[in-house]
Amino acid sequence: MTLFAAGWGCSGGNLRGMQTWDAITSRRNVRDFADRPIPAADLDRILEAGRRTPSSQNWQPWDFVLVTDRAQLAELSRVFSGAYHVAQSAATIAIVGPTADNPFRRAQFDLGQAAMSMELAAADLGIGSCHAGVADMTLARQVLGLPADRDWAILLSLGYPASRPLTPVRSPKRRPFDEVVHRGRW
Amino acid sequence: MTLFAAGWGCSGGNLRGMQTWDAITSRRNVRDFADRPIPAADLDRILEAGRRTPSSQNWQPWDFVLVTDRAQLAELSRVFSGAYHVAQSAATIAIVGPTADNPFRRAQFDLGQAAMSMELAAADLGIGSCHAGVADMTLARQVLGLPADRDWAILLSLGYPASRPLTPVRSPKRRPFDEVVHRGRW
Repeated sequence: MTLFAAGWGCSGGNLRGMQTWDAITSRRNVRDFADRPIPAADLDRILEAGRRTPSSQNWQPWDFVLVTDRAQLAELSRVFSGAYHVAQSAATIAIVGPTADNPFRRAQFDLGQAAMSMELAAADLGIGSCHAGVADMTLARQVLGLPADRDWAILLSLGYPASRPLTPVRSPKRRPFDEVVHRGRW
Repeated sequence: MTLFAAGWGCSGGNLRGMQTWDAITSRRNVRDFADRPIPAADLDRILEAGRRTPSSQNWQPWDFVLVTDRAQLAELSRVFSGAYHVAQSAATIAIVGPTADNPFRRAQFDLGQAAMSMELAAADLGIGSCHAGVADMTLARQVLGLPADRDWAILLSLGYPASRPLTPVRSPKRRPFDEVVHRGRW
């Protein structure tokens, strides 16, 4: 693999992307994607962000299956009614969980960290994303060729927004800051 | 709250921070912190990144308790042997889970997403971070003043690195890319 042979590392050589705070504030769920492929190098960069995610005792409980084939995406979108957007995505990454949890029961937490890393790496490139759970794990296992002992996955659909490009969201629909944040004590 | 009254939003007005890819590749676990406080506005920015995190049906299952008092940090560090670094941190954010999971059992996943958002927002500002689990939830509840019905928290210690500043890590200790990433099918 020759990831980032050029332009890797400090922003001096990094001609793509945006400031971190812009990526954090621009990230939003996108379910309506433009009919435009994502360059392979950008998909690799998103996956690399996932690979770098920290985890409990560095156990890295994830595997990523990248799907870009249109027919396979359509099939994959049938694993859950809420996964319809996978069919029209430019690519979908299936984040696959481990065969068993670790003693600290940190699998789900760490898988969530990996998802967030990839969502922000995508936003940095102007790429929208959306999660979809998997209701029919048997179908997901079949479409993705997962080993029989993997019983959890979540899908992250990716693509350029069909309409509004990603720009900072000024007032996200979230609980108020002062309700969420407690200073010193709850 | 007057968060980001100036300089909010697009990088034109954003004089702090770095490119997203640099933040992603520079983030590393830091447990040895410089004796230097983090500006309040930067702590708010890290917390705001957490608040903006996506979650299952936007249920936002998190609360954040920000601790900066030195004596309280020392007390908090006693909730788990692996939480010693909390005592010397400039600040620690306790990410507190919900009273109950949602029907999709997405609490831990979403809490992980919130943690990762904050870790990257911190890295963007040159601030290192490290997780610590909570073994003694009774003590955590007491030190943080948590309601009796909250039974899960994780600590995210924050501070400027005592030695090496955050710079892109070229070869992180992770499973190889081609082992983690499967193309098309597993």
